[in-house]
Amino acid sequence: MSFYDALEARDPVDREKDLMERLPVLVAHAQAKASYYATRFAGVIAGYVRTRAALASLPVTRKSDLQDTQAAQAPFGGLCTVSTAGLRRVFCSPGPIYEPEGRGLDPWRMARALYAAGFRSGDLVHNCFSYHLTPGAFIFEGGAAKLGCAVFPGGTGQTEMQVQAMAALKPAGYVGTPSFLKIIVDKARELGADVSSLNKALVSGEALPPSLRQSLAEQGIGVRQCYATADLGMIAYESEAEAGLILDEDLILEIVRPGTGDPVSPGEVGEVVITSFNPEYPLIRFATGDLSAILPGISPCGRTNVRIKGWLGRADQTTKIKGMFVHPSQVADVLKRHPEVKKARLVVDNESGQDRMTLLAELAVGSPDLENAMVGSLRDLTKLRGEVRFVPPGTLANDGKVIEDVRKYE
Amino acid sequence: MSFYDALEARDPVDREKDLMERLPVLVAHAQAKASYYATRFAGVIAGYVRTRAALASLPVTRKSDLQDTQAAQAPFGGLCTVSTAGLRRVFCSPGPIYEPEGRGLDPWRMARALYAAGFRSGDLVHNCFSYHLTPGAFIFEGGAAKLGCAVFPGGTGQTEMQVQAMAALKPAGYVGTPSFLKIIVDKARELGADVSSLNKALVSGEALPPSLRQSLAEQGIGVRQCYATADLGMIAYESEAEAGLILDEDLILEIVRPGTGDPVSPGEVGEVVITSFNPEYPLIRFATGDLSAILPGISPCGRTNVRIKGWLGRADQTTKIKGMFVHPSQVADVLKRHPEVKKARLVVDNESGQDRMTLLAELAVGSPDLENAMVGSLRDLTKLRGEVRFVPPGTLANDGKVIEDVRKYE
Repeated sequence: MSFYDALEARDPVDREKDLMERLPVLVAHAQAKASYYATRFAGVIAGYVRTRAALASLPVTRKSDLQDTQAAQAPFGGLCTVSTAGLRRVFCSPGPIYEPEGRGLDPWRMARALYAAGFRSGDLVHNCFSYHLTPGAFIFEGGAAKLGCAVFPGGTGQTEMQVQAMAALKPAGYVGTPSFLKIIVDKARELGADVSSLNKALVSGEALPPSLRQSLAEQGIGVRQCYATADLGMIAYESEAEAGLILDEDLILEIVRPGTGDPVSPGEVGEVVITSFNPEYPLIRFATGDLSAILPGISPCGRTNVRIKGWLGRADQTTKIKGMFVHPSQVADVLKRHPEVKKARLVVDNESGQDRMTLLAELAVGSPDLENAMVGSLRDLTKLRGEVRFVPPGTLANDGKVIEDVRKYE
Repeated sequence: MSFYDALEARDPVDREKDLMERLPVLVAHAQAKASYYATRFAGVIAGYVRTRAALASLPVTRKSDLQDTQAAQAPFGGLCTVSTAGLRRVFCSPGPIYEPEGRGLDPWRMARALYAAGFRSGDLVHNCFSYHLTPGAFIFEGGAAKLGCAVFPGGTGQTEMQVQAMAALKPAGYVGTPSFLKIIVDKARELGADVSSLNKALVSGEALPPSLRQSLAEQGIGVRQCYATADLGMIAYESEAEAGLILDEDLILEIVRPGTGDPVSPGEVGEVVITSFNPEYPLIRFATGDLSAILPGISPCGRTNVRIKGWLGRADQTTKIKGMFVHPSQVADVLKRHPEVKKARLVVDNESGQDRMTLLAELAVGSPDLENAMVGSLRDLTKLRGEVRFVPPGTLANDGKVIEDVRKYE
């Protein structure tokens, strides 16, 4: 049992105290150095933001809004605390969304995940994320540099050259997508190339099917996953326990009801919202658009930080109904008018031949008055007619869905 | 007029003294830490290698032999002084030939060339060399990091995204091939995208036609060239004088007769042979396979180092004649038997319907005896019959050609 540092085994009370103490400093830094936060957090007294409740009172910044925010104030929408000249690299992800990379060693905090996956100083890492335009490969480069690993920048594609290089250079590990690792290993077998030096891999960017993990393990490659984004870098990582993804030590995680900034109950599926202490690119209550949920308890490996399930889908359930966009936030607004309803889901079907929306609202005992009032709220807020039906508490699945589209078009 | 450092304006006598003082240290380091040199330089007393003449007595290491040398002792053929674990990155160029990257800042010494091309701390550099497999992009990354420039890793292809990113990020300069810069600038005009932030470029990897340089200058982009290889990094660079390529300060240049290790007369075209002080990958008398020639005098910009013409072709003129390989070194061996002939060229034609070789030998006054002796030497050394014809000194073009193939096959 070995940890990257002592932080991983901290008493969770100490971790929480540390994060909450750093929070007002972060908010003040963002307000002072990033024009976006100066506006967005106008009137917020940074010194008061020292609890989760206070944090939850701040507006979220949605990844889905970044493109417009950046277009209005190129290139970083006022979220970056330094000029481009003060950065090491700048990237462009599809959208386009631009991402800055600070000058620190391992600015994306990937060393911790690599360590948990078994990477150690002196290992050669075969890096098959793309180095072009997007930060993917560089997120892992930073972690390798911090750990003291050498890197072979394989990039994407050119499978035969990847195999040839592996056979000659004998890397200890691979980073990249799991599917490309399978392609490489299969091609090596086909070519009779010896890539048996590979004994570990840290994968990301797509699902790792248990059958693929098993098959690679049988070939001597222990595969671990991590969850990372181009804005935040590494968010959560697997350890040898392979029991959920452990949150990075330098982040604050919230799981919120999609479309809102409101934290859900522990264990409930919702949108991953992260507060990151990255000095060049402070992201405070950054709504990733990804769905996940907190796992109860702590990891058997001894790391004490909170764990999340893997990626459970996209949070953005904005749907076009009768030609009008309906956002999850509008469903949340309906509930705010009727606080006796704690959970609801808007179901859209077209069995009648045209779009129909029904709000399923969890409530032990409903009433015709409340139903009428909610139908009115729904119409006020969405400009669309819809039905309201009460269902017993616990009926709606814990899957983060606020709008469920079951229309059929065949 | 501004230099990257004071070294560039040194008295050439001081530069030569400095390089010659460092040479025995380099040779001793290579012998002690790199098994290849321990063998190749067996019996060489490092302390004596402190003159150009002593250097010229050492065997050259040919780039064209690297593939075999590396295959015999993977991955670096015993030329690398540290294990792979001690490197930052490892690359694979077509061949395959593997190249190591040390952990130093700017291990490929590109900051000097970027500076001469006008790049300064805080500039954003749009890097369109490939980051995948080969070191191209990283050679420029190192220089940018040392200068304090931020980098956008554009990579190759995806022209529209390159244009889009340039319009948003407003880079000050471009590094990449000149042809791709033209493609980007043309595409920007077609899309109506503003890429006018670009005011300089450092290009490499292919010829820069004067018309293209002119056309880009008219669009506000000052383009400079540099000569670099995946083994050595930056070798020589243009300054604002645009008068030849100035040798890097940390290299020793020799121009040798192709196929030999023998320095040519000043100004004569020959193969570029470089001695590099890279501690992780010392290359001593490394024959690049490229042809160039020394330019007389020094650059009008005030940099005092030796200058070379650009790339003048490939030095490896090995040719198959009547089914047998003939190497430039065999032609050189013929001349060694007849020292009265200073320069010669083997011309291969097939006008008679079959391969015929004629050795053109520069000599003021020839003789039938010498002719017969040289025909005999040619047959001994190549196992092929050939003619010898004397030509007046100065007849053969100064183009580095030792074997000229004028056969026609239509």
